[in-house]
Amino acid sequence: MIPIVSVVGRSNSGKTTLLEKLIRELTARGHCIGTVKHDVHGFDVDREGKDSWRHKEAGAHTVVLSSPKRLALIRDVQSDQSLEEIRGRFIRDVDLILSEGYKSDVHPKIEVYRKAAHPEPLCTHTDALVAVASDTPLDLGAPCLDIDDVRGLADLVEERFLRRRKERSVWLMVNGRRIALSPFAHQILLSTVQGLLGALKGCKNAERIELRVE
Amino acid sequence: MIPIVSVVGRSNSGKTTLLEKLIRELTARGHCIGTVKHDVHGFDVDREGKDSWRHKEAGAHTVVLSSPKRLALIRDVQSDQSLEEIRGRFIRDVDLILSEGYKSDVHPKIEVYRKAAHPEPLCTHTDALVAVASDTPLDLGAPCLDIDDVRGLADLVEERFLRRRKERSVWLMVNGRRIALSPFAHQILLSTVQGLLGALKGCKNAERIELRVE
Repeated sequence: MIPIVSVVGRSNSGKTTLLEKLIRELTARGHCIGTVKHDVHGFDVDREGKDSWRHKEAGAHTVVLSSPKRLALIRDVQSDQSLEEIRGRFIRDVDLILSEGYKSDVHPKIEVYRKAAHPEPLCTHTDALVAVASDTPLDLGAPCLDIDDVRGLADLVEERFLRRRKERSVWLMVNGRRIALSPFAHQILLSTVQGLLGALKGCKNAERIELRVE
Repeated sequence: MIPIVSVVGRSNSGKTTLLEKLIRELTARGHCIGTVKHDVHGFDVDREGKDSWRHKEAGAHTVVLSSPKRLALIRDVQSDQSLEEIRGRFIRDVDLILSEGYKSDVHPKIEVYRKAAHPEPLCTHTDALVAVASDTPLDLGAPCLDIDDVRGLADLVEERFLRRRKERSVWLMVNGRRIALSPFAHQILLSTVQGLLGALKGCKNAERIELRVE
């Protein structure tokens, strides 16, 4: 499962700026980073008049724009997707997901704090804080780094979330909903699928397996 | 498997215009449509200065922008994705995929032809044509409809691709590559997974199953 770390903070605290620096630093260290940004007001990423924009305007539920180096997808959803749903359904091939916002999700967090932006930080001791990046010392029960100490922050993230994980995990969705698996069910599914694939051509060294029934 | 129909034609023949009309017509009839557009020159759907644009510029491999009604994803790919790969990895929840272009893919096609744009059509009798939408009669071994007869075209597409399909199909990817399945392997995987799920809580009436091992 791809780990998720959320960069949170009050408005105008510098979340996007810190995130940019952290993405650059971790990418420079060879890690592949995905990001998720929540926009409660909706958005319009595409450009008016472009063919893909015209497809969406005409009523397409999903529009994909594909080129040799980049792929873009815009689709309708029926409700806000949780980070877990977004990770499960839309993100592959990255080592770590950094979200901007998503304070109320359960994932580990980094709070960005600037005294000038707000008198109080957003998180408390009860939040799952990995670190605080602040322009003033703050005790929230997690390491407090200088807001510009991106290397120190990257070290912490790397240490906790980017060491290679060897255990295999199984992810089961039924009719679009994730099914919680007991350790027994997890192991049965893992062993059965691995066993079946062991007998099939082209399935040697299966690191990532994806099986869909529709 | 979601059916794919490609709208093809020479440049300036009116592919996007026809696609827009067909999306509107099929959506009005209650079908959920996905589209794929190929852009060989690359593209830049996002807007300079937006947070998600800043994440991508900073080096993120994948950027997701999520709102209560719409989700957008921009990600790097290592090479051009085929329609089949795009369908398998990125598109869910639609009844039909209409692509703009992708003449050389194997999927059924609709050619759009306008005499003023080019003296010859793009397809020949050997192409898997569903129909030709043309401003002049053309015999390419498929029904030739008037370029403005979107209802007639929608009838044809509906009849051939949008009747409810009852057979279940299995889709297996290993390390990101699709594995071809013999009818025997297909049946074994289908029966085994369905059998296992029959014993799990929350898996009743499993219409769509997705199982991943990572």
